[in-house]
Amino acid sequence: MTHFPSHFSGPTLGEVGEHRAIEAIVQAAPSTRNGDDAAVLSHASPNSQGVATTDMLIEGRHFSVDWSTPEEIGQKAIVQNFADIEAMGARPIAALLAIAAPPETPLSYLTGIAAGIAERVGSYSAELVGGDLTSANELVISVTAIGSLGGSRPPLRLDRARLGQRVVAHGRIGWSAAGLALLRAFGRADIPPVFGPLIDAHCAPRLNPGRGVIARATGATAMTDNSDGLVVDLSTVARRSGVGIDLHSADISPDELLFQAAELLNADPWEWVLSGGEDHTLLATTAGEPPSGFRAIGRVTKGDGVTVDGAAPAYTDGWVSF
Amino acid sequence: MTHFPSHFSGPTLGEVGEHRAIEAIVQAAPSTRNGDDAAVLSHASPNSQGVATTDMLIEGRHFSVDWSTPEEIGQKAIVQNFADIEAMGARPIAALLAIAAPPETPLSYLTGIAAGIAERVGSYSAELVGGDLTSANELVISVTAIGSLGGSRPPLRLDRARLGQRVVAHGRIGWSAAGLALLRAFGRADIPPVFGPLIDAHCAPRLNPGRGVIARATGATAMTDNSDGLVVDLSTVARRSGVGIDLHSADISPDELLFQAAELLNADPWEWVLSGGEDHTLLATTAGEPPSGFRAIGRVTKGDGVTVDGAAPAYTDGWVSF
Repeated sequence: MTHFPSHFSGPTLGEVGEHRAIEAIVQAAPSTRNGDDAAVLSHASPNSQGVATTDMLIEGRHFSVDWSTPEEIGQKAIVQNFADIEAMGARPIAALLAIAAPPETPLSYLTGIAAGIAERVGSYSAELVGGDLTSANELVISVTAIGSLGGSRPPLRLDRARLGQRVVAHGRIGWSAAGLALLRAFGRADIPPVFGPLIDAHCAPRLNPGRGVIARATGATAMTDNSDGLVVDLSTVARRSGVGIDLHSADISPDELLFQAAELLNADPWEWVLSGGEDHTLLATTAGEPPSGFRAIGRVTKGDGVTVDGAAPAYTDGWVSF
Repeated sequence: MTHFPSHFSGPTLGEVGEHRAIEAIVQAAPSTRNGDDAAVLSHASPNSQGVATTDMLIEGRHFSVDWSTPEEIGQKAIVQNFADIEAMGARPIAALLAIAAPPETPLSYLTGIAAGIAERVGSYSAELVGGDLTSANELVISVTAIGSLGGSRPPLRLDRARLGQRVVAHGRIGWSAAGLALLRAFGRADIPPVFGPLIDAHCAPRLNPGRGVIARATGATAMTDNSDGLVVDLSTVARRSGVGIDLHSADISPDELLFQAAELLNADPWEWVLSGGEDHTLLATTAGEPPSGFRAIGRVTKGDGVTVDGAAPAYTDGWVSF
């Protein structure tokens, strides 16, 4: 059961019914492509390919109605899907939203999610083009993202890391995990304001649009995003590519804010950096200089697996669903 | 809570974990496009447009583990999504599957769903190109279908029915609702075998691939599929197009099998025909002869709403989520 915070008042989905609820979503996230059996996307440019990915968020597992606003939930749902499109070197152009919600869900909660989605798809010049709304016992949000991969360079696959390349990153590492640890310890209301950026990183992550396209255009060959954990995600790249990846501790050292949060929680900030997922930081390999917005964090090496300064990482776990 | 039938034995998702479960799904529904951050679709042909739709199925609402096999659940999930692609006059090319399942779900149940999906996407020469697997209290299946709309004719929208056109249909009408009524009355095991086709229509609907493309190529202008109910779905076409639709009772008269089932259940088969959804029968309007595989069932008229032989239908309800 999902227990919505009591300050969401007004009619519920059970009261207004499916059609009015869908109208409200479409009003919050307008699109000219929406409202038919299926959405027609724009004419593909010559030589372009489509790219598609899907991710599901379950209340109580991937987000909590006690910690996140509905706008943040919508934002997070988009970013974690669009990050997968960016991680191919492609440009997100459309999203579809399937949402299952209990009848007692306030309509204002649903439109809040839609507003968060509209905000994030808008920042990518993409659109929410379709969806489905149904009744369930739990709040479940399933987003599909569709992107466009232009030009003739290959997509940035997991198996294209090559010996000697730099490993580069765009975005924070470990911030989402630190935010989650703070939320678990304090609840949202009682977290010292200085840690706001860590909470934001967990509840409403951001990813600057276009970095994946830039990386692909400037010679990156492999890319993924930090969704399950830095070591776990880079281990996948290493295994698929048949190489090793050595991270430089000085280049992934926890930010000052992580050290402060770790002190408060009596935790090790390196665990957040190495094991924490959901930052949706782009991780790429390239033979050249780091693409604009990226910084070097390691090298592709002989061998297998991920090392830090040549040794086994202190933490290797990551997110698992079961 | 989802209670899986006891004859599904073997390890559960909680026992084998996410990665082995995903491997098993990919093995049951293989694709070369799967396994990266996002799936790269084929190069779009010049002048083609993408089409996308999503639909979510919740156990206990859209299907029941007591009545359907996992293979049928997968088949149904694909058909209801691909019908929306066909209803635009497009060709389904890919599907994505996001699935939330309780840890106690037998792995064999999950691979059954994947096998059903593989069977149906295969019949369309499409592929299951990606997905997500996560843990939840209820079994939730969210499918996104992606299609290709070639050529320069417009897509078959809901608002393109024109005065004087024929209304045409491809597929059975009312069979799914009759099957559901039988399942509710008897459970699956005790239904007289003669009604097998009605049960199949509900648990594992079929839609012949390519009918939507044919209808678009031969002059249909509007199309939808019978998902919420014949009157409800055609009322949407009528309202959006600013026309009326008059159905000819002789052309939508219940099939003999519906009369038999109705007699057994002491029901009115016209209710299944007029109100029953989930047949995923294609409903189109065209100025010409019915396209191959379609039959005429009525006319586009002046006025508004749906009538039968010029009078208000005996049943106008349809499926609603809340």
